[in-house]
Amino acid sequence: MADTLTVELGERSYPIHFGANLTSSVATRVATLQADDRRCVVVTDRAVERAQSVILRQMFQDAPLFALEPGEETKSLDGLARVLDFLAAEKVDRRGVVFAVGGGVIGDLAGFAAATWLRGIDFIQVPTTLLAMVDSSVGGKTGINISAGKNLVGAFHQPREVFISTGMLGTLPAREFSAGMAEVIKTGLLGDVGLFESLEARPLAVDSPELAGVIRSCCRLKAAVVQADERETAKSGGRALLNLGHTFAHAIENVAGYGEYLHGEAVGIGLAAASRLSQKLGYIDAAAVARVEAVIARHALPTRLREPLDYAALQAAMTRDKKVRAGSLRFVVLTRLGTAAVHERVEPIRIEETFREVGAG
Amino acid sequence: MADTLTVELGERSYPIHFGANLTSSVATRVATLQADDRRCVVVTDRAVERAQSVILRQMFQDAPLFALEPGEETKSLDGLARVLDFLAAEKVDRRGVVFAVGGGVIGDLAGFAAATWLRGIDFIQVPTTLLAMVDSSVGGKTGINISAGKNLVGAFHQPREVFISTGMLGTLPAREFSAGMAEVIKTGLLGDVGLFESLEARPLAVDSPELAGVIRSCCRLKAAVVQADERETAKSGGRALLNLGHTFAHAIENVAGYGEYLHGEAVGIGLAAASRLSQKLGYIDAAAVARVEAVIARHALPTRLREPLDYAALQAAMTRDKKVRAGSLRFVVLTRLGTAAVHERVEPIRIEETFREVGAG
Repeated sequence: MADTLTVELGERSYPIHFGANLTSSVATRVATLQADDRRCVVVTDRAVERAQSVILRQMFQDAPLFALEPGEETKSLDGLARVLDFLAAEKVDRRGVVFAVGGGVIGDLAGFAAATWLRGIDFIQVPTTLLAMVDSSVGGKTGINISAGKNLVGAFHQPREVFISTGMLGTLPAREFSAGMAEVIKTGLLGDVGLFESLEARPLAVDSPELAGVIRSCCRLKAAVVQADERETAKSGGRALLNLGHTFAHAIENVAGYGEYLHGEAVGIGLAAASRLSQKLGYIDAAAVARVEAVIARHALPTRLREPLDYAALQAAMTRDKKVRAGSLRFVVLTRLGTAAVHERVEPIRIEETFREVGAG
Repeated sequence: MADTLTVELGERSYPIHFGANLTSSVATRVATLQADDRRCVVVTDRAVERAQSVILRQMFQDAPLFALEPGEETKSLDGLARVLDFLAAEKVDRRGVVFAVGGGVIGDLAGFAAATWLRGIDFIQVPTTLLAMVDSSVGGKTGINISAGKNLVGAFHQPREVFISTGMLGTLPAREFSAGMAEVIKTGLLGDVGLFESLEARPLAVDSPELAGVIRSCCRLKAAVVQADERETAKSGGRALLNLGHTFAHAIENVAGYGEYLHGEAVGIGLAAASRLSQKLGYIDAAAVARVEAVIARHALPTRLREPLDYAALQAAMTRDKKVRAGSLRFVVLTRLGTAAVHERVEPIRIEETFREVGAG
């Protein structure tokens, strides 16, 4: 039996199941839903379809499956249109269920399609990347990118259930595993100094025995934050803290062009930047920044831009970021390792200095 | 001062203001929001922009305004993309407010854009057609069409406020006014026999002194239904009753091609069909059907298809309708004039007979 964590959100509460191999649990859920005349369909990408073909067949038998091109470009209005056309062609009605099997792109896209198809139907997540397991499984944020920026369009739509089958990480490319580690490191930095110190003592790898426990810790911490602030409306703290490093990261992804950096790689640089900014604002010292950067680097993630990006372009991208409230520059900072806070009205020069230190030109 | 009706939906409650000329009320609201540093933008269509240019300027001064092509084709993923690009270009942040000024197409499209931009921002409706005033103002249904069908994609997103300024109907083409009357007649049929009888006694026109009161009655009845069943999840009755005539109408619009019939015209035929079906199922007699058709016709609406449409195509479109639960044929019927109910498991032959009587080939 799987180990289960419940995200408590009233009538939108849902369980997250953890286990090394949840193939048969998913297959049982599909059979149960189908026995209740609920149409089950699968949205995934071609890389997952190739790497997990046997498991996909075991989980979903002959349920209709739609595989998109892997990559951030898929998370677009065009990708959304294709998923919606698939749901239409498969005559998915209001009682239908969409299974999102893949990484963050598939979870966000298929979740948004489920949020908007017939004004909202159920979806179940089967994350296949570390990033999706620790990040997208909790919170109900779904959405797509438009040319003006990442995740600018979407919906809050909680999954009905999440199956985290860590064995699926066995086929994940090393670069993708590292990218997921950026969110694990972030979790430690913003709320779990013990987790941070364990990563410092011993980098986590796909075959680490503690991997499942770490994923569960990340989900639990994120669930606690989301439960207190489901729609990110808290005046201070709340879900906003989960954006540690992300204002920098989104600007980097936007200016470099989506796909140039994996999201987790941009977050790696963003966490380094957030730490440096925290030092400039007097919260932490240089030794702490060095510790953060060492942990990022030991997980094969960048702490600086690979090629310089134009600072003016980064700045313009930041002002379009939806987290930048009413034009004022607010950033999540580390008040110490393991604790984060929102700092309002950061002086623009501090941001510029920070960006230049991580390689902006 | 405007007369106000509150739609009671807990934290999503909102007021609907009624008046002959609410231009200055809207202008005051815009000024108040702007004084609170909330960015106000306007989405409308070119026909409204032309017909109401002076009023638009009085209401919104120099707030950014985006005017789309009028017509059902605009209510598409492509139209959505254009509105989202406008919101991005105007740097609308989470505290921004979208004013939807237009008919149902603009209300549904701009409302859906507001529902999904930054995962949901506020919107305020200023309906300019009778249809939008009596129908789209209440209920929070937003969305777009895709090639597989109308309104298949969308969100429940309640407006913050609605301004129904009946003087704006002065420039509405007669055909559009009639189309709006289809929903007024529907309201009488499903829940207000007094309203139906008053339309029977004296057809409503744009200059009827009772117009404002009738619009308010329609909003009040719809509000009562929506308050009891916001997300259309009631097992029987509830919001589903508002679909009287609409399963037929959606199939007609889908097969004829969007734009061939105005939505209200298709609803006119749909109401005639629903009445005929109600007779076949033993609820009402032929005299009642004749009364319904007479009222529809006296408001310059069709009760039969102008050109025959292929029944097989209509049937296929119906099975794609999201209201057709899990493949079973359920229809809203009149149990008598002024009262509606859902009839489950209608025999397919009854639907075919009904469709052929209103002109299907």
